[in-house]
Amino acid sequence: MKYSDKILNTPSSFIRNILKVTDAPDVISFAGGLPNPISFPIDELKQSINHAIDENGAKLFQYSTTEGYLPLRQYIADKYKTDFGLDFEPEDILITTGSQQALELISQVLLNKGEGVVIEEPGYLGAIQAFTLAEPVFYPVTLEEDGLNAEQLEETLSTNEHIKFIYTVPNFHNPTGITYSQEKREAIYEVLKKYDVALIEDDPYGELRWSGEKLPYIGAGRLENSVLLGSFSKIVTPGMRIGYIVTKNKELMGHINTAKQAMDLHTNIFSQMILHDYLASNDLKTHIGKIADLYQTQANTMLNAMAKYFPSTVNYTKPDGGMFIWVTLEEGTSALEFFNKAMEEKVAFVPGDPFYTNKTNVNTLRLNYTNSSTEMIEEGIKRLGKILYALSNEKQTV
Amino acid sequence: MKYSDKILNTPSSFIRNILKVTDAPDVISFAGGLPNPISFPIDELKQSINHAIDENGAKLFQYSTTEGYLPLRQYIADKYKTDFGLDFEPEDILITTGSQQALELISQVLLNKGEGVVIEEPGYLGAIQAFTLAEPVFYPVTLEEDGLNAEQLEETLSTNEHIKFIYTVPNFHNPTGITYSQEKREAIYEVLKKYDVALIEDDPYGELRWSGEKLPYIGAGRLENSVLLGSFSKIVTPGMRIGYIVTKNKELMGHINTAKQAMDLHTNIFSQMILHDYLASNDLKTHIGKIADLYQTQANTMLNAMAKYFPSTVNYTKPDGGMFIWVTLEEGTSALEFFNKAMEEKVAFVPGDPFYTNKTNVNTLRLNYTNSSTEMIEEGIKRLGKILYALSNEKQTV
Repeated sequence: MKYSDKILNTPSSFIRNILKVTDAPDVISFAGGLPNPISFPIDELKQSINHAIDENGAKLFQYSTTEGYLPLRQYIADKYKTDFGLDFEPEDILITTGSQQALELISQVLLNKGEGVVIEEPGYLGAIQAFTLAEPVFYPVTLEEDGLNAEQLEETLSTNEHIKFIYTVPNFHNPTGITYSQEKREAIYEVLKKYDVALIEDDPYGELRWSGEKLPYIGAGRLENSVLLGSFSKIVTPGMRIGYIVTKNKELMGHINTAKQAMDLHTNIFSQMILHDYLASNDLKTHIGKIADLYQTQANTMLNAMAKYFPSTVNYTKPDGGMFIWVTLEEGTSALEFFNKAMEEKVAFVPGDPFYTNKTNVNTLRLNYTNSSTEMIEEGIKRLGKILYALSNEKQTV
Repeated sequence: MKYSDKILNTPSSFIRNILKVTDAPDVISFAGGLPNPISFPIDELKQSINHAIDENGAKLFQYSTTEGYLPLRQYIADKYKTDFGLDFEPEDILITTGSQQALELISQVLLNKGEGVVIEEPGYLGAIQAFTLAEPVFYPVTLEEDGLNAEQLEETLSTNEHIKFIYTVPNFHNPTGITYSQEKREAIYEVLKKYDVALIEDDPYGELRWSGEKLPYIGAGRLENSVLLGSFSKIVTPGMRIGYIVTKNKELMGHINTAKQAMDLHTNIFSQMILHDYLASNDLKTHIGKIADLYQTQANTMLNAMAKYFPSTVNYTKPDGGMFIWVTLEEGTSALEFFNKAMEEKVAFVPGDPFYTNKTNVNTLRLNYTNSSTEMIEEGIKRLGKILYALSNEKQTV
């Protein structure tokens, strides 16, 4: 058998592959991007399951429409109105099989082989993987502490005509945990309004904020080719695989609908109706507030442990929300080598390599704090610190 | 915005588009391919939902593995052992978001732009749609009453080196309702074993048999590049979107796994665990027997009504199972014109056109009998017969 060039070029997910190793009960894993299971509203969902079946019967179990369950799309539209004053209608929203499918839909609809995608450097590896199936050329633009470098973005767009879209995670970015500043959002908007490109704002973590005020989107509601991606994976449950695409560009939405038909006909309607019942019967804001409190405690535990156990030469981000901390080791230290030593000590994380489209053997890495107890976080960081001191010339003081 | 060539060339599903029109309560629809909702085991599924949550808790709601829930894959492997004596292991099985996603996965993994796919003529329109996103060249091979024309298949394969796979629906074919004979299966196997191509056997309807004996697969268990597709949509519920791919080719399965990661990470684990609980707690054979009995009654009602109300110049298939009847009108009669007249009389079906990759304005059409009451079937066929008599020169005798 000969396989397609696109699949031979698509990286298998480093994270998904190591999850099997890191699943072992004696491994402390900061590798995945898993929500804390104690945050799942299981009792409320169970009530909604029984209620939704009693109310709707066979409709939960039959084929359904490609665009998704109308009351769920209405709920999402109303939520953007309340939270951001954005004027979306249900027809601007299509329900996807998780946000991951949204990435695949967009790249299939927009990209011919060899056309361009601007991606954050470092950027979300699931997006790199999804886009790669459409065989694009990646244009990495440096992600700074407050967002994409706007000058570099303009330079990239002005010198490469075949770029189709820019992919961003503006809030509590994966993998770095950073959030785009208000100024950076404006600067990027000013650049993008001059070009015929789509802006993808992928926002699965935005509501998980425990510090600071939420900011308006870069393009949503004002750029013609704005595409917003959302998900219930981090605020209700990832197991049901329910995400969504929002765009007011009707032609684009029509093509996305056709691609969705070809890919899986429609998203699981059983789960859509249960999720809608849950959202209609519970106060989501209160629930999200509890998750944010939990993650703040976990993040602070990790940051305090890093301050205590890591050499002073190690730098890292201090997120105001979300699920990740991004660590930069001393210049020349290999994150992959660090990973191998850490696994010997039964601690896992994701070395930076898969978050870049054109760099290897980097000195950066991603830590997740949401799926470990505070005791495990303290112990895991302690072990990592010990290895880091051994790798550096600094003398450990703790 | 400029869109990709592949999406501009992908047809939007005729069926999905007309479903909106045919959903009106006063329309008698033979258009969709929907199971009869009275066949959904709602009470048993409700029990399984509560039981699965009580047993597994947060696991139903967390991220899960790309290949799918192990006990469900084990159940599927055991079922093939029992039903066909086929020796599959869970590692040969990957759970997909419905069979539709399996079609998309296979075409992404195997096809470069311009490479070949052999498709039945007429063939399943959802497959044509999914494959089109990978920009192949289609090689239609005539589907006869007992399966693909084997000589034409051999001629096609021997003269076109870039063909990657053959797509078939061997049991109660969509759209025609025909089943491949034992002799045809052998003849096709003898052809395929000489070529380095994959054989896709898509079998969502095979268990819905009310007449005759089940037959062994063409390639499963004996062709190296055999791929079998299955689904729970027609025998339990389509709303949960659970299908699967079976292949013993490990390299192919590895690539499919990578593509699945890129497309949606994994199939809804909440639904997988509930479905598995249902399958482990109930006798599926008994349940399927009831569905087959129901569909036999509906099919016979339609066939008897067609014998009574249709002109004698109209030909049609007489299925031994499944969900569809294929109608061939008098030479020169346009199924699309017939469709427009039928919609005026509030009866819907699918004109043959979307089931062909290179023909339009054909004289064939698909009727579905599973989602209408026997009264509605009788009334709908009566109305269609009246139009057909008006379109033909024959005099109506009923």
